Amino acid sequence: MNQQLDLHGSFHVYDTTLRDGMQQEGLNPTVADKLAIARHLDGLGVGYIEGGWPGANPKDTEFFRRAAVELDLEHARLAAFGSTRRAGLLAADDPQVAALRESGAGVVTLVAKSHVGHVEKALRTTLEENLAMIRDTVSHLRAEGQQVFLDAEHFFDGYRLDRAYALEVLRTAYDAGAEVIALCDTNGGMLPGWVSDVVNDVLETTQVRVGIHCHNDTGLAVANTLAAVEAGATHVQGCINGYGERTGNADLVNVVANLELKLDRQVLPPGLLTEATRIAHAVAEVTNVPPAARQPYVGASAFAHKAGLHASAIKVDPDLYQHMDPAGVGNDMRLLVSDMAGRATIELKGKELGFDLSDNPELVTRVTNRVKELELRGYTFEAADASFELLLAEEVDGRRPSYFDVESWRVITETLTHAAPGEEAVSEATVKLTAADVRYVVTGEGNGPVNALDQALRSAIEQAYPEIAKFELIDFKVRILDQGHGTDAITRVLIETTDGASSWVTVGVGANVIEASWEALVDSLTYGLLRHHQD
Amino acid sequence: MNQQLDLHGSFHVYDTTLRDGMQQEGLNPTVADKLAIARHLDGLGVGYIEGGWPGANPKDTEFFRRAAVELDLEHARLAAFGSTRRAGLLAADDPQVAALRESGAGVVTLVAKSHVGHVEKALRTTLEENLAMIRDTVSHLRAEGQQVFLDAEHFFDGYRLDRAYALEVLRTAYDAGAEVIALCDTNGGMLPGWVSDVVNDVLETTQVRVGIHCHNDTGLAVANTLAAVEAGATHVQGCINGYGERTGNADLVNVVANLELKLDRQVLPPGLLTEATRIAHAVAEVTNVPPAARQPYVGASAFAHKAGLHASAIKVDPDLYQHMDPAGVGNDMRLLVSDMAGRATIELKGKELGFDLSDNPELVTRVTNRVKELELRGYTFEAADASFELLLAEEVDGRRPSYFDVESWRVITETLTHAAPGEEAVSEATVKLTAADVRYVVTGEGNGPVNALDQALRSAIEQAYPEIAKFELIDFKVRILDQGHGTDAITRVLIETTDGASSWVTVGVGANVIEASWEALVDSLTYGLLRHHQD
Repeated sequence: MNQQLDLHGSFHVYDTTLRDGMQQEGLNPTVADKLAIARHLDGLGVGYIEGGWPGANPKDTEFFRRAAVELDLEHARLAAFGSTRRAGLLAADDPQVAALRESGAGVVTLVAKSHVGHVEKALRTTLEENLAMIRDTVSHLRAEGQQVFLDAEHFFDGYRLDRAYALEVLRTAYDAGAEVIALCDTNGGMLPGWVSDVVNDVLETTQVRVGIHCHNDTGLAVANTLAAVEAGATHVQGCINGYGERTGNADLVNVVANLELKLDRQVLPPGLLTEATRIAHAVAEVTNVPPAARQPYVGASAFAHKAGLHASAIKVDPDLYQHMDPAGVGNDMRLLVSDMAGRATIELKGKELGFDLSDNPELVTRVTNRVKELELRGYTFEAADASFELLLAEEVDGRRPSYFDVESWRVITETLTHAAPGEEAVSEATVKLTAADVRYVVTGEGNGPVNALDQALRSAIEQAYPEIAKFELIDFKVRILDQGHGTDAITRVLIETTDGASSWVTVGVGANVIEASWEALVDSLTYGLLRHHQD
Repeated sequence: MNQQLDLHGSFHVYDTTLRDGMQQEGLNPTVADKLAIARHLDGLGVGYIEGGWPGANPKDTEFFRRAAVELDLEHARLAAFGSTRRAGLLAADDPQVAALRESGAGVVTLVAKSHVGHVEKALRTTLEENLAMIRDTVSHLRAEGQQVFLDAEHFFDGYRLDRAYALEVLRTAYDAGAEVIALCDTNGGMLPGWVSDVVNDVLETTQVRVGIHCHNDTGLAVANTLAAVEAGATHVQGCINGYGERTGNADLVNVVANLELKLDRQVLPPGLLTEATRIAHAVAEVTNVPPAARQPYVGASAFAHKAGLHASAIKVDPDLYQHMDPAGVGNDMRLLVSDMAGRATIELKGKELGFDLSDNPELVTRVTNRVKELELRGYTFEAADASFELLLAEEVDGRRPSYFDVESWRVITETLTHAAPGEEAVSEATVKLTAADVRYVVTGEGNGPVNALDQALRSAIEQAYPEIAKFELIDFKVRILDQGHGTDAITRVLIETTDGASSWVTVGVGANVIEASWEALVDSLTYGLLRHHQD
């Protein structure tokens, strides 16, 4: 391990989550969100964090103002993104360039046109003036003491259309003092072989230091980035969780994990890649985008195995079934308890949850049989870890953990007489239960029957267990199991609940969707209380 | 375009959605779901559909039984997946091999170990016996008249550990008559350059026809598949929407789109790639997995541009901002967050349903706008043809078809005092409506609120329209749309109804799941009556 790794030296990991990533449909972070994300990115050890476009909008200007005061970065340098000066103006006189100069960022990344069609049709200026804009803006900012990188926008498409001009743009920026020139596959249409060829040509025919910026429109952003690095690029751009416009930018964690774990190139400070899973999920919390379970390396399913068949072999040698040790990216191997589950899976799963079952074969048999029997009736424990843990606790202790006794419940949904369109029905639930020796009869209203039951249940239990106030239901999934029976079918409900720090999933099954939901609801609160009381 | 394209000839597109794809966490399709997916895959024009593992579980056995009777495939051939015979048994005597032989599938894809560690630790047999198992099983099935492909499991890892043995496995299978040998990156840890090298070596040192089967653990499944094809593989395996265990399999649509649109290789019947977006979304409806907006080529965001900045340039020349014409995969460019439905789609759809809209541009505009507005609120007409036809009829005739007027409804679900386990709640619905000038007040009971409403609604209407007795609800799907809101979210309900001869799907949307179900229920009966009265 290279303890002397220079993040701002011979290889750059450059994050553009806060600028290009935020172009993603539906993302609209506050300044505080952006500051929080910057801290997470610094914790991962990236070399550069592109914070936004100061001067282009008040939020990004404010971000740089606050970052200068509030952000204490250990690893990363902050980069301000902006464009070359307007046509027909001196860089020194362009207010947009002034905003970059005054951003407080040590690095400015300038976006410049390198595609003749874009110069003429989008920028609406001459090819000569575009070169002058690049020359003037780069040298002005350099003279003012900033480090300058250049994003050569639409470079690959531009190169195909007019190679000579595209290369001329690179030479112009290099001669004016740009330290890195990132070749951008802005429309995301490239293949790895094509990227290699172009990077090779650029490195052979110019003196520029090549960076790479890829989008995922062909599903190849990570592959294209690696192809560029293998061809000699020494600066990679990307976004955490692959955020970005359309299909997204290259997923930076995925790129870095491949570089470090597959190509044996240390590009983050040693040891920090193990923070990747935690940080990818933390950023997803800030952006409020549910993390993708199937995301390479850091997804919740990335090291999940439907064991059954192979469980005994996994016990002997887990490396037979995974391409790397999940701990390398801070992830975990998970065994999915499914109807294929055998005894070995149950034992491993118990261990994962802190129960050592290895010396209790009868218990393992009992749990295995109950899981099989319940899965036959429609339950699934693959997703519902919390319900499985309650079942396990019940078998270990001889009784199911319980914090309240339900006497009965009822929920009415009916049409409103004078309702606005689309709001024609309302639900009301009544729950009778005993918690901590007190009997409660409570009523809750909701815009659906399950919501009403949830409200009623909480308002009763909260009096005995105020900690449930922070439990929040964040997902609710319904699946009809035996297709072919219409509304008279078995229903499976999965509920995900969070306490702010972590989340858990419970399951309910029944012919009655409301009853199945109720079962999952009761389990979700019970499990949350169990965990809270264990801490 | 090659009108003579042979899907079972020099290049194979081999889909394994129904087998390997269903290993994805949370997927658990019914036999009817699998049949529906197979029809969609055939509509895309893949050459082979791997249907499952007959004999390994009752569901897959049932799938092949029903497929032989019910599936009328235009393009694809059905493949049965299974393993080589058990150690120490003749292939002819192995019940698992018998299930493959008797599956009715013309093709059998055998999975075989090619990694010495897996032979010894997982299979627990000798290297020699493993070769004998392959030789015996392949030649037995060939002799029985089936075409045999071989999946060389863990091939790339096995090749690294013991190249000679891994190649011996391929030669053994080839000599015994396996037509294609798919090299599997079962653990998904490969990079494109490594895949190329191995495929080159296999093609140089053996005579086998090489296929490729990749998983996405490094985020490179598509890139690795393309690398194999560029090195000479002529059979690609993958799953629709990239379904699969852990991080998923190679996304087959993504692979095919890159082959056809980027590498200019026709691999599907000409013209069918334009069905990709529709089919990818339709399969997502069946599996009840929300489609990923950022999915390359077919995602809702794949050609979505944040307008503003570039809007005028996009108008002048959209090709400046997209890597291809989205129509090539049946997708659309979007400038704002809105629908997927363009005017052309509406016109085509109308034609499909028997309305010629080509001479009525205002009507098309009106319908397009209503679809946009409704899809924004969560409706989907992709799956719900019957609801779309009711909407179209409403716009054409100026009023929505109607056979009864609902005054109000109410449904109560409550716990029973003396109930059997698993049957603790019951639902009762009351509906007030007027049909054929008679007012009905009826009550129905059911094992769930929607079932109770269905019973009540039918018992009222049946008196005026006895033909509804033969309408039966055969599927009921619920999807929570805005994840992150728990039980207080927008719900979409899809209901499929049959009259014995054919079936139709209706949609309802609302914050209240009961209300959304009610809307879909009313539409399903209305549409059935409309059709009956037209006949």
